[in-house]
Amino acid sequence: MRLRNKPWASKVIVGNPQIVEPNPKECRGKWNEIFGNDNPIHVEVGTGKGKFVTRTGEAHPEWNVIGVEKYDSVIITGVERLQENPQPNVKLIKEDVQELTMFFAPKEIDRIYINFTDPWPKNRHEKRRLTYEGFLKLYDEVLKDNGEIHMKTDNQGLFEYSLESFSRFGFKLKNISLDLHRSDIQGNIMTEYEERFNQRGIKIFRVEAYK
Amino acid sequence: MRLRNKPWASKVIVGNPQIVEPNPKECRGKWNEIFGNDNPIHVEVGTGKGKFVTRTGEAHPEWNVIGVEKYDSVIITGVERLQENPQPNVKLIKEDVQELTMFFAPKEIDRIYINFTDPWPKNRHEKRRLTYEGFLKLYDEVLKDNGEIHMKTDNQGLFEYSLESFSRFGFKLKNISLDLHRSDIQGNIMTEYEERFNQRGIKIFRVEAYK
Ligand SMILES: C[S@@+](CC[C@H](N)C(=O)[O-])C[C@H]1O[C@@H](n2cnc3c(N)ncnc32)[C@H](O)[C@@H]1O
Ligand SMILES: C[S@@+](CC[C@H](N)C(=O)[O-])C[C@H]1O[C@@H](n2cnc3c(N)ncnc32)[C@H](O)[C@@H]1O
Repeated sequence: MRLRNKPWASKVIVGNPQIVEPNPKECRGKWNEIFGNDNPIHVEVGTGKGKFVTRTGEAHPEWNVIGVEKYDSVIITGVERLQENPQPNVKLIKEDVQELTMFFAPKEIDRIYINFTDPWPKNRHEKRRLTYEGFLKLYDEVLKDNGEIHMKTDNQGLFEYSLESFSRFGFKLKNISLDLHRSDIQGNIMTEYEERFNQRGIKIFRVEAYK
Repeated sequence: MRLRNKPWASKVIVGNPQIVEPNPKECRGKWNEIFGNDNPIHVEVGTGKGKFVTRTGEAHPEWNVIGVEKYDSVIITGVERLQENPQPNVKLIKEDVQELTMFFAPKEIDRIYINFTDPWPKNRHEKRRLTYEGFLKLYDEVLKDNGEIHMKTDNQGLFEYSLESFSRFGFKLKNISLDLHRSDIQGNIMTEYEERFNQRGIKIFRVEAYK
């Protein structure tokens, strides 16, 4: 994700509390109350510019969708998207995924999406990968018992690592595809990165992890 | 595997009981006795013409290696190979893998190899795949607690299926590679099929399953 300095971004973010939740810690355990319904809650970690969460919220009005992204300069595009087309079932949280259990109570979440997350290929950066054991622990805590993690990536090394990491942690794996766009998996919703890779003919890897 | 009719094959097989064990059921629980050592026992299921087992036995005199293959016309090449170059730590069993628990006692085996097994891509043939749940049950029974299944294939669909099947059964996955010959996995021993695919530049998938 290229980071341009956008000093006005934080102002827009603060000015749109109905889009970017200003006090996510106070929402812990109350997200269904906040959405005003009992619908399942799906969270994308590392949501970037928010294309996937807005598309998912649109395709699935029966879900509540939350995107977590740490950078002002990136999330701002998602804010603008939602200003233009308000979606009551989509919200953003501008925080680090490391803090996930501060915003979500145990078993509050139905599904977590990890889409085209930074691969951090160097061994010494393993802990930054969003499929590192430390992150899986957080997901495991906030996910319902029948909750799922849906991962997509173009990065072979990250995918190999993530399959092993999920498995080692005790997640089982299903609906694996080593070439998503030439598979018979239905209902895929493209992310921004996915569109780019797919246009260039790059294969997309996909897996669902569950307990 | 192309099957040529080789009527003389069964004669050669019967004539070489030190290579093809004539009464594998009577060896159940006694393989270490038969090999005359306490070395770990590695079994390749669907061994074909035996290139992998002979190479593995050669590279690892500290292992006992057994190849299971059901067709006379295929296993015969392995017999000839072992007639030319006798290897006391390599044996063959001419039987169907479905009978595996008849030849091996619970926890008798240290490792199972499944190399380039027939993919049986049609759903209605799922039960024939050597990574079908029914076969995993057999492997699970004969494997030691710290035993492993090492699988290689060029077939994407079979690999996706197998990862899910292992995982669903309760095996964990490690040392996954989606491109074995461009990975940093050490000590790979090529099978006959692998050589052919690799020469044509086809990627090889690999995984280890463990409990
Ligand atoms: C490569 S982009 C992918 C964006 C989007 N998911 C897609 O598929 O188009 C990854 C995003 O994850 C964000 N990210 C990475 N680690 C994060 C963390 N620990 N907490 C919050 N966001 C993170 C990055 O800032 C970046 O915007
Ligand atoms: C495609 S060949 C691969 C041979 C070898 N493993 C290699 O990698 O070169 C698969 C072999 O498995 C054998 N096979 C398949 N199903 C089997 C079964 N249920 N029992 C015994 N052998 C089987 C076939 O007869 C065939 O020779």
